[in-house]
Amino acid sequence: MPTVNQVPHLQTALTGPLLELEQHLLNHQADIECWFRKQFKQTPAPFYASVDLRNAGYKLAPVDTNLFPAGFNNLHPDLRPLAIQAAQSAITQACPIADGVLLIPENHTRNQFYLENVVVLQEILISAGYEVQIGSLNPEITENTTIDLPSGKKLTLKPLVKKDDRVGVEDFFPCAVLLNNDLSSGRPEILEDIDQTLLPPLDLGWANRYKTEHFDHYKNVSNEFSKIIEIDPWLINPMSLQCGPVNFKDRTGLECLAGAVNTVLQETQQYYDQHDIDSEPFAIVKSDSGTYGMAIMSVNTPDDVLNLNRKQRNKMSSAKEGLVAEQMLVQEGVYTNERINDAVAEPVVYMMHNQVIGGFYRVHTGKGSTDNLNSPGMHFESISFQSSCVMPDQNQAPDAGPNRFYAYGVVARLALLAAAREIAASKNASEVEKAS
Amino acid sequence: MPTVNQVPHLQTALTGPLLELEQHLLNHQADIECWFRKQFKQTPAPFYASVDLRNAGYKLAPVDTNLFPAGFNNLHPDLRPLAIQAAQSAITQACPIADGVLLIPENHTRNQFYLENVVVLQEILISAGYEVQIGSLNPEITENTTIDLPSGKKLTLKPLVKKDDRVGVEDFFPCAVLLNNDLSSGRPEILEDIDQTLLPPLDLGWANRYKTEHFDHYKNVSNEFSKIIEIDPWLINPMSLQCGPVNFKDRTGLECLAGAVNTVLQETQQYYDQHDIDSEPFAIVKSDSGTYGMAIMSVNTPDDVLNLNRKQRNKMSSAKEGLVAEQMLVQEGVYTNERINDAVAEPVVYMMHNQVIGGFYRVHTGKGSTDNLNSPGMHFESISFQSSCVMPDQNQAPDAGPNRFYAYGVVARLALLAAAREIAASKNASEVEKAS
Repeated sequence: MPTVNQVPHLQTALTGPLLELEQHLLNHQADIECWFRKQFKQTPAPFYASVDLRNAGYKLAPVDTNLFPAGFNNLHPDLRPLAIQAAQSAITQACPIADGVLLIPENHTRNQFYLENVVVLQEILISAGYEVQIGSLNPEITENTTIDLPSGKKLTLKPLVKKDDRVGVEDFFPCAVLLNNDLSSGRPEILEDIDQTLLPPLDLGWANRYKTEHFDHYKNVSNEFSKIIEIDPWLINPMSLQCGPVNFKDRTGLECLAGAVNTVLQETQQYYDQHDIDSEPFAIVKSDSGTYGMAIMSVNTPDDVLNLNRKQRNKMSSAKEGLVAEQMLVQEGVYTNERINDAVAEPVVYMMHNQVIGGFYRVHTGKGSTDNLNSPGMHFESISFQSSCVMPDQNQAPDAGPNRFYAYGVVARLALLAAAREIAASKNASEVEKAS
Repeated sequence: MPTVNQVPHLQTALTGPLLELEQHLLNHQADIECWFRKQFKQTPAPFYASVDLRNAGYKLAPVDTNLFPAGFNNLHPDLRPLAIQAAQSAITQACPIADGVLLIPENHTRNQFYLENVVVLQEILISAGYEVQIGSLNPEITENTTIDLPSGKKLTLKPLVKKDDRVGVEDFFPCAVLLNNDLSSGRPEILEDIDQTLLPPLDLGWANRYKTEHFDHYKNVSNEFSKIIEIDPWLINPMSLQCGPVNFKDRTGLECLAGAVNTVLQETQQYYDQHDIDSEPFAIVKSDSGTYGMAIMSVNTPDDVLNLNRKQRNKMSSAKEGLVAEQMLVQEGVYTNERINDAVAEPVVYMMHNQVIGGFYRVHTGKGSTDNLNSPGMHFESISFQSSCVMPDQNQAPDAGPNRFYAYGVVARLALLAAAREIAASKNASEVEKAS
């Protein structure tokens, strides 16, 4: 039988509202699952996604939804069969006749953590019954390149080629092409107008996507959901405003940014006052596109964005692969009051198709409860089977492990649904564009 | 991290052929999963099934396929999320618009092991997002009856009623009706011609079904499969002959039975000789319908069936709920050479939709390797996540735990596919009957 130490020891600041949220979720479990089923029937879920959550004790909200998730190697291996089942559903839905999947990873060939993730993703797809080859966009990969990884596994990257209107490697040009590359450096020419099913679609790369669009969809989703389970949507929705263009080097657009920060701080303070929450509001300022944690700031006053020193302004200007941060997202800061061995922790939930397949805690011993934890020095604690996010236990208290993790799984799937609607909207938009 | 003692310690007699089988399965994993996917697309899998396997070391074969599996309470709780995912797929396929499931259990109200199974099944379906009510066929259940179970859980049985052409309880008449009752005592009048989706269909109850038909389908399935992975189908197929009518009390039909036993023993001996297997052939004689282990004999010579004493003949005459055993199945006996702590053990694999969702070992300290283990004194050892039957490990030896269990999952799904074809054939037959 499982022993208790397989689940990381959690310390959470549980005050009224979150317990209340968890109790509401437990009471409405069949309704919730039924609602999700109908929603994802209407709007198909993305192939996969990971969602960063912040749990303040009185509020549980998504703060980042990644449609090209890495980190599959950080999931607990016990839960692998869930991923295999979900992968079968996801590929069958996208490409019913597919026998193979071409996987296109990020270009980094020296980040071994990332490559371990690619190997695990490949293993999941093979176990789901597909031939999987890795086609690399990296111009340095000019021949088949096998890399030995710290885990003892091997990964073979092959140069991606185009033949007629299909991409592939060697003689492998399957119907399904899975992107594990967020296209931060733009839309690769080789992937334009291919006659294959690209998952997720090219338009969802960071070259085209804005976080604020995602959070607009999320706001609608959380409003609809909150009506069903009769909660205040504020409990699960972080206020999000777009602002820009901002150029930190030239100091243009900073007034607008300070205004947005002011709005977020004031509205949050108002809510805190109404609900007797004794915390100081803060706001997160980050690039409205891109996934990496560099161009991100936690601020307590509007002045914080006006009085940046040179180093801070440089940092905010240097998003991933040289992409300039122009549009900014100003988001209500949600305290993370989860602790693992005294270090701050935030849950990251992984989904494939419309299923939660696992998750982990991102833990940082050198950060505080208002900080971005996705930064050097972080480590991961996987969430194991006892807490698989899909199996609440009505016989336990609302804040018991399985129920806490069920709440994570529900809020993460709300973000997944928002992403599904975002994809559907982007498809409609690109069809309208093609037609005109 | 998981510790080794979470998996029951296994002792198996591993000689050449099974290792060879496992190696073949590992080498063809993507082909196998791809083939299963296509097969179940063509012929939908039953809602659920459990399959009893026997592992002789040189042969791995199914010996019983149950379309109304009980024992869900014996599955390892770690694997519950797999069942939840699979239940969603199964119900969505059968009844896309269903919000609720009516579950019809066996009539026994005092078998607490069975009732624990019903509760677990209900929990799985609730977690999958359905309202679940239990409608009992038992005439003693005339009002809602809540039973307290040893686990601390409660089960509420409600009297099944018919309104127009739908069955239900109180005001609950959902589209999906799930049978966990094998209909050994016949087809209940109340379930005939209902305007709901009955899972599995009424024709699959033991009142209509013959094991030999299942094994005929299984033979075809195993022949097709063996070609793909290039193995001798004998490695996975037990020879099965139908014989009857036999009446043990009147001693009629026994000559025919002895003849069938003779054929099975001789052909098995021939195979053993060809492959240097130093075992004595034996045959299993059992009722060709019914699931319970009473009317079942293990015999070593044709004379064993001719020279039965009165007690043995009485036993063979008394199948479940008084159903008379008329048609008999004579099946090649497969030694079970698996041991858990020196006791003989056979794996039982559970599936929902087209997915393996878990399994356990049926263990009997008082039985030998040729005996039927489904008899008083047996106990269960659940197979946990590390061995979930869907996740082989190419980096381990073919006989390592995960690979052994993958082999179980493959052979069990072959039996599942045979059951799927059996259901399809029975539907065709009953449509032809209705049309004529």
